[in-house]
This record gives sequence, C-alpha cells and structure tokens, in this order.
Amino acid sequence: MATNPRVAADQDAPPVTQLLASFVAKHPSRKWSDAAEHEALRTFLNWVGCALGGARHEAVDAALAALAELESAPQASILGRTEKCDMASAALVNGIASHVLDFDDTHLRTVIHPAGPVASGLLAIAEHIGASGREVIDALVLGVDVECRIGNCIYPDHYDRGWHITGSAGMLGAAAGCARLLKLDEKATAMALGIAASQPIGVREQFGTHTKSFHPGAAARAGVLAALMAKNGFTSSARAIEAKRGYARIVSTKTDWTEITGELGTRFEIAFNTYKPFACGIVIHPAIDAAAQLRARGIKAADIERVDLKVHPLVLELTGKKEPQDGLQAKFSVYHGFAAGLIAGAAGESQYDDAFVRSDEVVALRRKVVATADKSIAEDATDVAVTLAGGRKEHVRVEHAIGSLERPMTDKDLEAKFRAFAAPVIGEGKTGALIASCWKLAEAKDVKALIAKARP
Amino acid sequence: MATNPRVAADQDAPPVTQLLASFVAKHPSRKWSDAAEHEALRTFLNWVGCALGGARHEAVDAALAALAELESAPQASILGRTEKCDMASAALVNGIASHVLDFDDTHLRTVIHPAGPVASGLLAIAEHIGASGREVIDALVLGVDVECRIGNCIYPDHYDRGWHITGSAGMLGAAAGCARLLKLDEKATAMALGIAASQPIGVREQFGTHTKSFHPGAAARAGVLAALMAKNGFTSSARAIEAKRGYARIVSTKTDWTEITGELGTRFEIAFNTYKPFACGIVIHPAIDAAAQLRARGIKAADIERVDLKVHPLVLELTGKKEPQDGLQAKFSVYHGFAAGLIAGAAGESQYDDAFVRSDEVVALRRKVVATADKSIAEDATDVAVTLAGGRKEHVRVEHAIGSLERPMTDKDLEAKFRAFAAPVIGEGKTGALIASCWKLAEAKDVKALIAKARP
Repeated sequence: MATNPRVAADQDAPPVTQLLASFVAKHPSRKWSDAAEHEALRTFLNWVGCALGGARHEAVDAALAALAELESAPQASILGRTEKCDMASAALVNGIASHVLDFDDTHLRTVIHPAGPVASGLLAIAEHIGASGREVIDALVLGVDVECRIGNCIYPDHYDRGWHITGSAGMLGAAAGCARLLKLDEKATAMALGIAASQPIGVREQFGTHTKSFHPGAAARAGVLAALMAKNGFTSSARAIEAKRGYARIVSTKTDWTEITGELGTRFEIAFNTYKPFACGIVIHPAIDAAAQLRARGIKAADIERVDLKVHPLVLELTGKKEPQDGLQAKFSVYHGFAAGLIAGAAGESQYDDAFVRSDEVVALRRKVVATADKSIAEDATDVAVTLAGGRKEHVRVEHAIGSLERPMTDKDLEAKFRAFAAPVIGEGKTGALIASCWKLAEAKDVKALIAKARP
Repeated sequence: MATNPRVAADQDAPPVTQLLASFVAKHPSRKWSDAAEHEALRTFLNWVGCALGGARHEAVDAALAALAELESAPQASILGRTEKCDMASAALVNGIASHVLDFDDTHLRTVIHPAGPVASGLLAIAEHIGASGREVIDALVLGVDVECRIGNCIYPDHYDRGWHITGSAGMLGAAAGCARLLKLDEKATAMALGIAASQPIGVREQFGTHTKSFHPGAAARAGVLAALMAKNGFTSSARAIEAKRGYARIVSTKTDWTEITGELGTRFEIAFNTYKPFACGIVIHPAIDAAAQLRARGIKAADIERVDLKVHPLVLELTGKKEPQDGLQAKFSVYHGFAAGLIAGAAGESQYDDAFVRSDEVVALRRKVVATADKSIAEDATDVAVTLAGGRKEHVRVEHAIGSLERPMTDKDLEAKFRAFAAPVIGEGKTGALIASCWKLAEAKDVKALIAKARP
C-alpha cells in the first residue's frame, strides 16, 4: 500500500481557500453595513455574557485542572475567573464556558453557534498582543463570515451525518479571525486556513456531555495555533478546503461552493446571528414565549385546567419528554418549557435546576399540558389554547418566537440576559460597566480594560 | 432547527468504547508474546531515530516558534533539540519530527504509522511524571493496539474518503496510551477515548506540506490532553466511537466491529508493525531493493544500457514521475528510486536532496529505466531485467521488498538506520548509548536518562 500518494487537486471547485484568505487578509476595516456592525457588537456582548454564565461550571473546572497540569503560561484571562492561561488554552476554556449552558448565539441556517469558536480565540490573542477593539470587531466579523459560509456550503449533509458543525466548521472561522488579528498576509492566512482544515472537531453523540462544549473551545484553540504556526512558516495545502481529498468533500456529500463565493465582501453572515432568550433548544422557545405572554395577561398556574399546545412535529421528536426528572432531562421537555414560562416568566438556568423541575407546582402544570404535532405549525411558531377553571379559554398564537430573526431579542433583552449571567459572578457594578464597555468596543484602544471588568 | 437533539445510541454496535477502555485500563503488564514485546522495542527504537532525524527540519522549527509564542512550560524534551515544552506541546513537536521525513513505521493493513501518535504522547508524559520504561512499553503496546484496531475497523473506506488515517485514528491510540500511563481507571479511560473521538485529525490533501507531519503530532497532543481532561473529571459519551452519531460512522462507511473485539488481549497489532528502509513511499521499495541487489553484484550505472522494471499498476499511478526536478518530486518517482538504489545502494535523505536528484549520473540512469505496470506483480514485489553494454543481461526478482512483514529489517538494519539519523544530531558516542538504552527500555526505572542521551 502507498503511504504517500500525491493527490491531484480537484479542478471543478473554485479556489475557495485562496479566495477566503484574500478576503480575510485584505477586506477593509469596518467596510460593512451599520446593521452588520451592530450585530457584531450584539454577538460579542452575548458571548461575553454566556462565558461569564458558564465560568463556574464543572466542565470549566475540569478543563482548567487539566491545563494546570500543563503549567500553561498566564497570557490571557478566563472570563469570570481569576486564572489565566496561554492564548490557545484560554481560547479553549472560554469556548467551553460560553457554550456549556447551551445558551449562546445561533446562525439559524446552519445551526452553527458562531461566537464560541471565533470570539474565544480572538479575545485571548487580543489581550496578549494588546489589540484594539476595532481590530477585534473586524476579525470577529470576518471570522464569523468564513465559518458560516463554510457551514452554508456543507449544511445540512454535514450536520446530518453527525458532525457538530459548531466545532467542525468553526475551526476555520477561528483560524480566519486569528489570522486577521495577527495581521497575517494573504499567503499565511491561506496556510492558517489549511492547517485548520485538517482539524474538524466534534461529533453529535457528545450532546449531553462536557465534550459538547469542548467542541467550540477546541475549534477556537485550533484557530489560535493554526494562525501562530502559519505566522511562523508552517505550510499546508492552499486548496485544503476544496480539493478532492480536502476538508469539505471529506466531511460532507454536499459542497455548494457558491455559498462561499457569492456576495463575498458585500453580504455578511454575522448580520443573521440570533440569540437565545431561553436556556434550552430553540424548538422549545415558541412554547415558552406563549406561556410568558399568558403570564403577562395575569393567568396563574393554579387556575389552569388544561393546555392544548400545537407544535411542529420536530418539537415532540426532540423535546417530547413528558415527565422530566431533573434539570438536564427538562431541557428536552417542551412541557417543562411551557410550565417554566407560565410560572416564572423565564427559562433560564434557575428554571432548569433540579429543585424547580421537581417542585409540585411545576410538576402539576406540566401534567396539564397536551402537546400535539401539527405540520401546519412552523418550527418557530406555536398555537396555544388554555382552559381555565370555570371553563374560560385563553388563546395565544406565536408566529415567530422571541429570539428568531423575525422577532429578535432587543438590545435591552440582551442586556437583561447578560445581567442574569454576569451579576452573580462579577457583581452588579462591574456588570453595568462591562455592558457599557462591550457596546463601546469599537472605540477601545485595547481590550485589557474590558477584560479586567470580567474578573471577579 | 434544533440545536441540541438527543441522539439514541445505535444498538447494533457492540460497546467498543467501553470494551477498549476496560482492556486498556486492566490488561496486565507484559501479558503478550516475546515477539510482540520485541516488536514494541523495535517500534520505539525506530520512532526515536526518526524523531532525531527530523529534529532539525524547518517544520519543527516553525512549530517550536509558534509554541514559543505561547510560552509553553519546559516539562518535556524535544528529541534532538535543546528546547523543552509542556507535555502536550512536546507530544505535538516530537510527532511532527518523527513523521516529517516520511520514514517512520507502517502498520501495513491500514497504512497507519503507529508510533508517531502514541509514542510522542507517552514519552512526554513519562518524562514529566517519571514513569518507568516498563510502563511506557505497556502503554505503547496497548495504545498501538487500540489505534490499529480502530483502523482495521474502518479501513479502507475511511482512508479512501481522504482521511490521513495516522492522525484520524491515531488520536484514539494516543488517548488510550496516555490514559494507561496516567493509570486512569476504566471509566476515566472511556472518557479519554470519548474526548479523543471528537478530534479526528488530517486530510490527505496535505500530503507534500508540513501539515502532513502535523497530523500524528496533533493526534499525540489530542491524546495527552484527552487523558488529562478525563483524569480531572471532564466527561464524554461512553459510546463515542460506535454510536450512530459517533466517530466511526461519521468518518467511514465501513465499520467492522469484529476488528476491534476479535482476539482482544490475545492478538496484538504491534506485532505486525514494519519499518521503512527507504525515505519514500513503500510502493517504491521493491525497485530500490532490486537495484541495491544488482549493485551488490558489482553492476555499475555506466555499464547499463536499459532497465526493464515490472511493477504493480499502483506503483506507476502513485510514483510514475519520470523526470523529477527536485527531491520532493523524486519521492514520487520509481525511476529515481531505482537509480538511487543502484548508484548509492540506499535511498535515504541524501538520495533525495536536490543535488543528487539533478546529478548527471542519476539523470542518465533514470532515463534508461522502462517501467511497465503488470497486474501479476504484487505490490511489494518487482521483476527487473537489466541489459548491460555488450548485451549481457542480469535479472532480479524481489518477491517481498526489504521492510515488508515477510522480509523485515533486522535489528541491525534498524540500528544502522537509527545511526544515520542520530549521529549527525547527537554525535556517535551518544548514538550508541541511546541505542543500548532503547533496547533496554523495559529495565529503565525512569526514562529520563534515555531522554538525556537524545539531547544534542
């Protein structure tokens, strides 16, 4: 058997590795719409908040304990903690923290969580080299664009096969963003993309374990190291993404190159980023949203006799657990989501702790919910009829759940979500200051002051 | 779209992640044949030699320069160099060095290069924690067994699809070996395998670039970190290898579980390891071998009128370059291989430098070689008829090239290969002492003295 055959590059595919490298290295700073720029700030704010929220999770403790055995150098901060790590390791840990609560952002077309792989790498490098806020935003926009365009190229086949696309496309976005931040030229950026292309990270079987959150973290780390290696002359194939035996064809049967090349530099995928208001899979969001609207009308759990909940069939397939026994199971229960929305008006981590899940009031309300799959209901919609004691009925129809592209969380919603994560970790005072710093990121001469506010 | 569906584990597959974890954690030390034990020592010796040979390569320089930016802690040595790195980074660099000359070992059934991913991780950990030679050998045998059994399960589909199997199965062997060396229990070992299962590394498009050698290095590093994370409580799926949306089904259409479970603990794949005598793809080895035999009969290039070389069709497909212009191209030229064997009696790095490749004598002899694809010739065989000036003919038939399982390199051959790599880096004196230390590895109380001899 041959161990070293030379593989001819595939001639059908456009040279997307080079095209992306040129784009990342050369696209002018801030040359995109105000809407894309504002979405970049929202992406960053939401990511910082999620990382603070996850900072004390046991998965983060375990990862930091492992890195302590490697005596990692204190180059970059872990958000919401006092430890520091080398840039690559900090990227890993912040990536884990920002995803471990399943509460981060979503690029809906690809179900990529864009910020974790990209922002985690960028902030670590930025802190160490003293990059400006403007440079970080530029690298974030471009890195997310590469990541989501790769995702658009290979989704859905890639995801359907079992890859956790956030890590298995994200490492390319991370490498792109880190290359931009390190000011690599076009050629070195192509090498960084190539090195990253050999490292798709994450299989969906890990869902429900710490390793799910490892995926965006490891993608971020791969991006940091790929950029540093390319900067120092390490070589890779300049057709690593598109070649016959390159990344895209190996990890997917679908490869639509026009998704990478189309409107490159004029349409920015970060403009389509969305944020979760609730700490569970987004198929449950319409039901929680409807319940919270009923709560706002003054309806109380004790008054409810029966809830008829019409949902898209996928909702019951994925989250049909009627009697969840703990917080983790409750994340896969649309019944619990409705109960949380009506009783608490929220579905944050507090509504997914075991005590809340097992409380009498919640158990009783869950049991009154009758969910029906209905193909006429869209994935981000629901139709709810509530029968109250005495026979009175209330009705709510949600066409687009809060957090969808059509009904995005407002900036104030995002700030409230941020506060809920950050205040218990760094205190109310620093939380307000940190929110202000995130919105003003573009003006920051360097990011160190912002990062200092995220330290407990 | 759902971002967090729970995927049911596939019920058809045996629980191979757990089976392998139990095997790795519990199989008694040195419970295998003397032949397997001796092959482990040969595997180790050959790997140390290859790492020394590659230690000064520009790919290693570039990787170390990148790691210097991370201020990696000096926990473990880089063979043949004065730098030290943290355990994970040392694993990465030694893995790169040992593969960068394409001269390392081969498990012929899977074309995995077994030592790079496994030994690179083990030596780094062993040096830092002070493990004994016995413990290193045990972990090497078990790690290689896991890696090659995984390879047997998914080869050839996995490789044909474009994965560089050394990195994309090797990270599981690395995790297994590191888990054993760290004395993880069965449960933690399963978690280490699970974390590694999310990180297949390497696409074949990288062949011809530094990133090819990055693959075993990154696999080694993934194994070190997976084991450390599992040791510290990081969780993964205990069915990460075999589940429906787990590693094996995602990276291959073929999954023959009996290759993992069959004779587990009685047949050891390390016993089937082979070593390359020549610095090129092994399909060229029969031609070089035949040429060297002709040289030993006293035949000189100047006397040759014509060479008729019958080879397996794959040889010309992969290495049919008739007029290579430099050393890298020459690695894909069976014509050059024959010329090197006849003129130099060897095909080491010296016969693949640009000057040798372009020398008049070599160019002239290459042009006299007429290679013909012949389906009746096996991949590791060749049939050569040489026509000399005056019309005399010489004939050689090689049934199994030197370095094949049927005609392995002797221990003395391996020592000579080692010397050629090591002496220019660490000197003749240390080279002899290091060879002796490798053969006596089982008796070493710790590996530090051996490693010290590999320091320039």
